[in-house]
Amino acid sequence: MKIDLKILCFVILFTVAAALLFFFSGIPGTGGPAAVHDEVWENLKFVKNVMIWFMLMLVAFLMIFVKKYEWGVALAVLLAAAGSFVVYLFIHDVYFKDAWNQDLMLGAVICSITLVIAIGCFLGTVKMWQYLLIGILFAPSYVLIEWFIGNVTLFGAFAQDPGGSILVHMCAAYFGLGVAVALREKRTFKEPMYTTTHSVSFVWLAAMLLWVLWPAFVTALLPMDLVTIGMITCYLAGIGSVISAWIVCYKIQKKVDPLVYTYAMLAGPVAIGAPLLMVGPWAALAVGIVAGIVSALSFIYLQPRLCDWLGARDVMGVHNLHGVAGWVGVAASSLVMLLYGAVNWALANIAVGLIVFVAALSLGIVSGIVLKMTRGCMCDDELFSDDADFIKNEEPMI
Amino acid sequence: MKIDLKILCFVILFTVAAALLFFFSGIPGTGGPAAVHDEVWENLKFVKNVMIWFMLMLVAFLMIFVKKYEWGVALAVLLAAAGSFVVYLFIHDVYFKDAWNQDLMLGAVICSITLVIAIGCFLGTVKMWQYLLIGILFAPSYVLIEWFIGNVTLFGAFAQDPGGSILVHMCAAYFGLGVAVALREKRTFKEPMYTTTHSVSFVWLAAMLLWVLWPAFVTALLPMDLVTIGMITCYLAGIGSVISAWIVCYKIQKKVDPLVYTYAMLAGPVAIGAPLLMVGPWAALAVGIVAGIVSALSFIYLQPRLCDWLGARDVMGVHNLHGVAGWVGVAASSLVMLLYGAVNWALANIAVGLIVFVAALSLGIVSGIVLKMTRGCMCDDELFSDDADFIKNEEPMI
Amino acid sequence: MKIDLKILCFVILFTVAAALLFFFSGIPGTGGPAAVHDEVWENLKFVKNVMIWFMLMLVAFLMIFVKKYEWGVALAVLLAAAGSFVVYLFIHDVYFKDAWNQDLMLGAVICSITLVIAIGCFLGTVKMWQYLLIGILFAPSYVLIEWFIGNVTLFGAFAQDPGGSILVHMCAAYFGLGVAVALREKRTFKEPMYTTTHSVSFVWLAAMLLWVLWPAFVTALLPMDLVTIGMITCYLAGIGSVISAWIVCYKIQKKVDPLVYTYAMLAGPVAIGAPLLMVGPWAALAVGIVAGIVSALSFIYLQPRLCDWLGARDVMGVHNLHGVAGWVGVAASSLVMLLYGAVNWALANIAVGLIVFVAALSLGIVSGIVLKMTRGCMCDDELFSDDADFIKNEEPMI
Repeated sequence: MKIDLKILCFVILFTVAAALLFFFSGIPGTGGPAAVHDEVWENLKFVKNVMIWFMLMLVAFLMIFVKKYEWGVALAVLLAAAGSFVVYLFIHDVYFKDAWNQDLMLGAVICSITLVIAIGCFLGTVKMWQYLLIGILFAPSYVLIEWFIGNVTLFGAFAQDPGGSILVHMCAAYFGLGVAVALREKRTFKEPMYTTTHSVSFVWLAAMLLWVLWPAFVTALLPMDLVTIGMITCYLAGIGSVISAWIVCYKIQKKVDPLVYTYAMLAGPVAIGAPLLMVGPWAALAVGIVAGIVSALSFIYLQPRLCDWLGARDVMGVHNLHGVAGWVGVAASSLVMLLYGAVNWALANIAVGLIVFVAALSLGIVSGIVLKMTRGCMCDDELFSDDADFIKNEEPMI
Repeated sequence: MKIDLKILCFVILFTVAAALLFFFSGIPGTGGPAAVHDEVWENLKFVKNVMIWFMLMLVAFLMIFVKKYEWGVALAVLLAAAGSFVVYLFIHDVYFKDAWNQDLMLGAVICSITLVIAIGCFLGTVKMWQYLLIGILFAPSYVLIEWFIGNVTLFGAFAQDPGGSILVHMCAAYFGLGVAVALREKRTFKEPMYTTTHSVSFVWLAAMLLWVLWPAFVTALLPMDLVTIGMITCYLAGIGSVISAWIVCYKIQKKVDPLVYTYAMLAGPVAIGAPLLMVGPWAALAVGIVAGIVSALSFIYLQPRLCDWLGARDVMGVHNLHGVAGWVGVAASSLVMLLYGAVNWALANIAVGLIVFVAALSLGIVSGIVLKMTRGCMCDDELFSDDADFIKNEEPMI
Repeated sequence: MKIDLKILCFVILFTVAAALLFFFSGIPGTGGPAAVHDEVWENLKFVKNVMIWFMLMLVAFLMIFVKKYEWGVALAVLLAAAGSFVVYLFIHDVYFKDAWNQDLMLGAVICSITLVIAIGCFLGTVKMWQYLLIGILFAPSYVLIEWFIGNVTLFGAFAQDPGGSILVHMCAAYFGLGVAVALREKRTFKEPMYTTTHSVSFVWLAAMLLWVLWPAFVTALLPMDLVTIGMITCYLAGIGSVISAWIVCYKIQKKVDPLVYTYAMLAGPVAIGAPLLMVGPWAALAVGIVAGIVSALSFIYLQPRLCDWLGARDVMGVHNLHGVAGWVGVAASSLVMLLYGAVNWALANIAVGLIVFVAALSLGIVSGIVLKMTRGCMCDDELFSDDADFIKNEEPMI
């Protein structure tokens, strides 16, 4: 293996760039984290931070069922997460001058997991380096929506979304759909997406562990005394969709499609994000049951019609889980607030849902146009294919 | 795909039922958790709660080695866990009027993991919806045994079982055996249980991670200052069985059966449950060594004889791990208490072990009769088969 | 199945030995843990302890890509970890008289994970029982190096290595290389190491989750108020190598070798161990970028030359990740201390790096000679082979 001069130059330049970053980042002496005023609480958040990163990686395995396109999914998730993570932190460090603490790191990983969900809509239809690009494009869009939800009042009320039904799930679903619509990759309809027993077993593993870790996600930014109730409603909503999604799949399909069930069983935790702290355990169970029903129905009946109409396939069915169950979360939280008599709060949540829907879709379409313009030629055998990106070392058939 | 009128009615009715639950569960305003008096401790228990749910899901992957029956195991675990979790919480909420806090949630997930272990005895021999049914049947049985162990004194002493050797493992093994005996499914003896390299690799993953997470399980309900010693004895017992189970398998079988070793390596953590806080680290290592020996021997010598005698196969060999190592835990804890001179405490533990053995077996037999009566016809190709329950999308052979 | 008299004797003797350990370990009454003065902090460390054990098991799955040698890797990891864990604790209990607390348990699991990394250099070239032996040989070597780094000053300064770049990663790489050199198993060069899609998907899973859990590892022994900054620099270094390793692999190889990328993407967290608390977030990103570049280059260019020169293959490429990125950590930390003007501290870190390099290599060679002498005949088909150690139950081809 000879060392190519061009590669040598490239490596040297890349290393020099990193070295410049090292020296001009204010090292030594500055750039460290602000004083931590509550050390125990920071250390407790440390654990949630790790758990949410864990979930982010599991999302890759939730989407790894196409046997000829497994490693590419994993790498795409890593690159999309890395790109968005860095840009999110850069904006918050340089523009908002935020302190470096667990909350900032939690904000960043939540931004990245939102993108990782979103890429499910168009996974396998762009080039590998473009997942890094979409990370860079997504983070500013997300920061905008995050700022809007956190700082703007509508009808005199703030949006109630402690567990991210709107900020994370709806944002992910509609940003992703926006990209897919802009790419308009019609060849996706012809992709048979063959699985194997074990490629789908990885999906079961990912879905079951995502379900388990979900309370860390919905309680990440709550004050300490609300964490337990957040866990209780999250798990009960999750139990609801585990049961109801199976019953619906079983009643309609007789034989269950595991790639419907393993997603729809997570609809409860998605939907409970908005009403997380407004409902008791049994009402949370009910929210989860409804979300599981609606999500499973959406996979079976809505998905083919919607994709036909959009002219592009939602590759991983992101909208059926995150979009649809996000709306269930908006509806449930608004309903509870109406029952409380807080009409303006209910209206605020509905309005924020609609605004995030429009904003995420638009920003997704714009980002998708950038992807389409920079993508260049994409051969048929580069779609949904590890062969385009990876060396394989399989035993030759005799 | 046309929308069937019957399915439409069913979906509407199901949704309406959930909505009624939502409204009549006392929302808005009540049903929330009681005041949390120690927030830090609640937040620390939050982590253990997640870890035990994680273990529950891993138990599915411990049993996923039959290649033609992988997804069914995962779904059965989800349904059994969901059914028992809801009913456990319902009983504790409505009948015992317990506060909603981490301890209640821990109690519920420990109930569910007990059932998930138990179903290993008869996995693949009942219909999918019956795992939901067994969840509903199991929870009251478990609550009864849990109440008995926690509230009844024998010989003037309470049972000493902080890590669940008796309450969880023996209860699981004998309830499960009871069901298997009632089902008396003789066709299980003919099942070859073919594996693949990767289906067994999932089992290695599950066994190794279960081993890792076990301290969260045995220390879940301990006071804060005993958690560290619980972890120390748990890991040392675990190291003991990792070593001794391998030596026994290797000496007897020459080539090790991975489906014996990956289970028997967990015997130490099972057995240490009862003597968890009575022994120092090196004695815990000894307990683990003995448990690993006994469990491996049980797999190799006891299992075929016991199953012949019972007329039903303990499908996943639950008894060899949880039953037998549970007895080691009872014996070790009683022995230590004898050495302390606390004869009545030693007798109490032995008596509780025997009572749980009889009670769990009886309740299991009753539940198994219900399963058998409601199961209806079960064709040969529905046994241990994903094909009966799932749509597959595999690449057609050319 | 008849019970063999020899086996019966063996089992009885083994059990008696365990019982003697049980009685002579000072049970009941002594051997328990010392009083815990800060319970919350102990409970927070409990979580990290579990996370590091989790990482140890994941290291097995990082090395599980050779399809015909999956289960053997898992078992080797368990036996190596168990042997070193027990001996480490024994030395610290009996010789150093350390209290039994979370810090001791953390020290022990860090010792074991170091060995588990090290065995990657010669995995598949020794007999199964020798992984237990190497555990027993490694622990004293490690304790010596650990004591040296913690207690000896050079140029009036202590080594700065809070996250284990030197103590763990360099120690692992050079101890492992030392063993490989002593074994000089030339047949490794002929091993084609065929993979399958899924065997490599397990590697992706392990690499991605190891990346996620890494902050628990580097902050395990830090005081409470430094944990957040340790997490921040660790994740940013990790993001750096996720991006840079991919760019280098892609630029040089066009099609990426997943078994280079999944390792090199972890180079940032390895390298940040030494400068963990000296750099801000953006400088940590730069360290990670450089580490990813250097590690990927090392896999592609250095590995074949180095192995040729040594006359033995570094089976899993341990040196390219842990050795090389360890040196990057030494260089980065020394550079920062030079910029601070602390020349003696910078020299101390370089000197400790060199001493650990020589010491680990020498101790590895000595241990390797012991392995070689006790290994006996190793047939060709025992190399890298599950068939030598395990019973398989695969469906017969028709």
